[in-house]
Amino acid sequence: MAVYTDITDDELAALLADYDLGAPLAFKGIAEGVSNSNFLLETEAGRYILTVYESRTNPDDLPYFLELMRWLARHGYPSSEPMADRQGRLIRHVRGKPCAITGFLNGLSVRRPTAAHCREAGGGLAALHLAGEGFPMTRANDLGQAAWSSMFAGLEAAAEDLKPGLSRTILSDLALLAERWPRGLPTGVCHADFFPDNVFFTGGKFSGAIDFYFACTEAFAYDIAVALNAWCFEPDGSFNITAARQFLAGYEAARPLGQAERAALPILAHGAAMRFFLTRLHDWGATPAGALVKPKDPLEYERKLAVHRSSPDLVLFGDGA
Amino acid sequence: MAVYTDITDDELAALLADYDLGAPLAFKGIAEGVSNSNFLLETEAGRYILTVYESRTNPDDLPYFLELMRWLARHGYPSSEPMADRQGRLIRHVRGKPCAITGFLNGLSVRRPTAAHCREAGGGLAALHLAGEGFPMTRANDLGQAAWSSMFAGLEAAAEDLKPGLSRTILSDLALLAERWPRGLPTGVCHADFFPDNVFFTGGKFSGAIDFYFACTEAFAYDIAVALNAWCFEPDGSFNITAARQFLAGYEAARPLGQAERAALPILAHGAAMRFFLTRLHDWGATPAGALVKPKDPLEYERKLAVHRSSPDLVLFGDGA
Repeated sequence: MAVYTDITDDELAALLADYDLGAPLAFKGIAEGVSNSNFLLETEAGRYILTVYESRTNPDDLPYFLELMRWLARHGYPSSEPMADRQGRLIRHVRGKPCAITGFLNGLSVRRPTAAHCREAGGGLAALHLAGEGFPMTRANDLGQAAWSSMFAGLEAAAEDLKPGLSRTILSDLALLAERWPRGLPTGVCHADFFPDNVFFTGGKFSGAIDFYFACTEAFAYDIAVALNAWCFEPDGSFNITAARQFLAGYEAARPLGQAERAALPILAHGAAMRFFLTRLHDWGATPAGALVKPKDPLEYERKLAVHRSSPDLVLFGDGA
Repeated sequence: MAVYTDITDDELAALLADYDLGAPLAFKGIAEGVSNSNFLLETEAGRYILTVYESRTNPDDLPYFLELMRWLARHGYPSSEPMADRQGRLIRHVRGKPCAITGFLNGLSVRRPTAAHCREAGGGLAALHLAGEGFPMTRANDLGQAAWSSMFAGLEAAAEDLKPGLSRTILSDLALLAERWPRGLPTGVCHADFFPDNVFFTGGKFSGAIDFYFACTEAFAYDIAVALNAWCFEPDGSFNITAARQFLAGYEAARPLGQAERAALPILAHGAAMRFFLTRLHDWGATPAGALVKPKDPLEYERKLAVHRSSPDLVLFGDGA
């Protein structure tokens, strides 16, 4: 849940006066996204989401995110299209914060994805990678492998608090990942946060993706690795190889993986687990007790890290292979 | 903001299977209402709100609230109509809590009502009182004058914490209100919480009311008094007599007040301020630090109480009369 910024009817009217969207008919804060404030906005012209970007989103990155969303929507990918005001601007300001109005996307996220959902989601991720081809802007992945050691610097004590001895294990993982990190894989537009809560289904079919605020230019296979970690672990911490195979089958039906991409998946999945462990560990310590948004448990990703560490081929072959 | 209960896609699908509303197309928690959890629900049949009733709402009162909402909607009042499932039930359960699906109501609430909004809101309240005529159910106002002394019992220390000497002032107010409380005024269906955040406008015109979860059988003039306190005080604590006159003019254009009702407004406004002071004082002490929902400041209503105490004719004539 996240509504950090309060927008009055007067502030909304002032903003809408610069758009060709007609008068507002409904406006409600919605509990979607954890980094920004989102509002359902219905006007005479249709339904939209007003997003107010909070401090977590770097304003310098907004042109990339919004131009990408526009590109994807215009290249047939089911995602929210940003609306331009009468001067052509996608980014405006309200209460001193950047904001944007994007189209409303139908669909529901699933809490417990089945293998069938994983297949659909895999297809949806491949479609995103294909739709992004030709997008002229780039953005480095500032939460990619090159950043992990510096992200961990200063968090050693937090890791020890979480689990004695963990700091040393993480340092050893970081060395391993630095040594074996694959280079030269096919890259392009990646979502980089393709989690079940960012993927919509209608009637069991993939119907779109939201929250492109970590999107970047990355190895496609890394995007798959992030998603495998997010979609294919059971609540008890075990890896569901059937779900993973379905995700990959759905992906490859639209974009077959090269040999190098496939071979890289295990180390990429290990690294993708590191990326989410590190940001969750950071947020865990940085969030004051009693804050509105409860930070996500870093131990969930510590356990995923441990699984990849002990069974490096798990993602491809399962435990029994 | 309030989303206390988390509903999964599977739980939603199981619930909707008993309704004739088609498949879900969108589902988002919304930040509306402080006592219950509300979700925007779009299905193939239209747009709805799913409300999950939390502990504050007495389940025994739900048939009254929901039958009233259905009555009002069917008697031309712009409010959400509850949807019955295939067995005709308005109340269902999810996660062990009662819930209901009601129609989506367009409109925006206003943060800083103008005198013109007050006139519209007055008309909207009168329309509610008229539309409720003939509604066969009744519900006593369990937060009415008869309850205030027992509501204050045990809160003396909290009142002293808020402002030294306040406990004695409140006891004296309660005695005065008990002595002078008007009897025999015209009664009927009252909203009892007709605050600006529960009233919608479209294009500056009253377009509907929500949140009937304090509705009860009460003196119509008490409902007006609650609203005058909520709509006609400026942020600096002063009473805006122009706004009050406009509210009453809007009301009386649809339902003229009798002489006794008009004469009772000052003491009713004093009492209505007491009702909201007492529940806010209770919530202030009962809400743990760091809770998701910040309790409303009881001092706002302590100041309104003081205004009515020192200028008993204010509501009708203003300071200068």
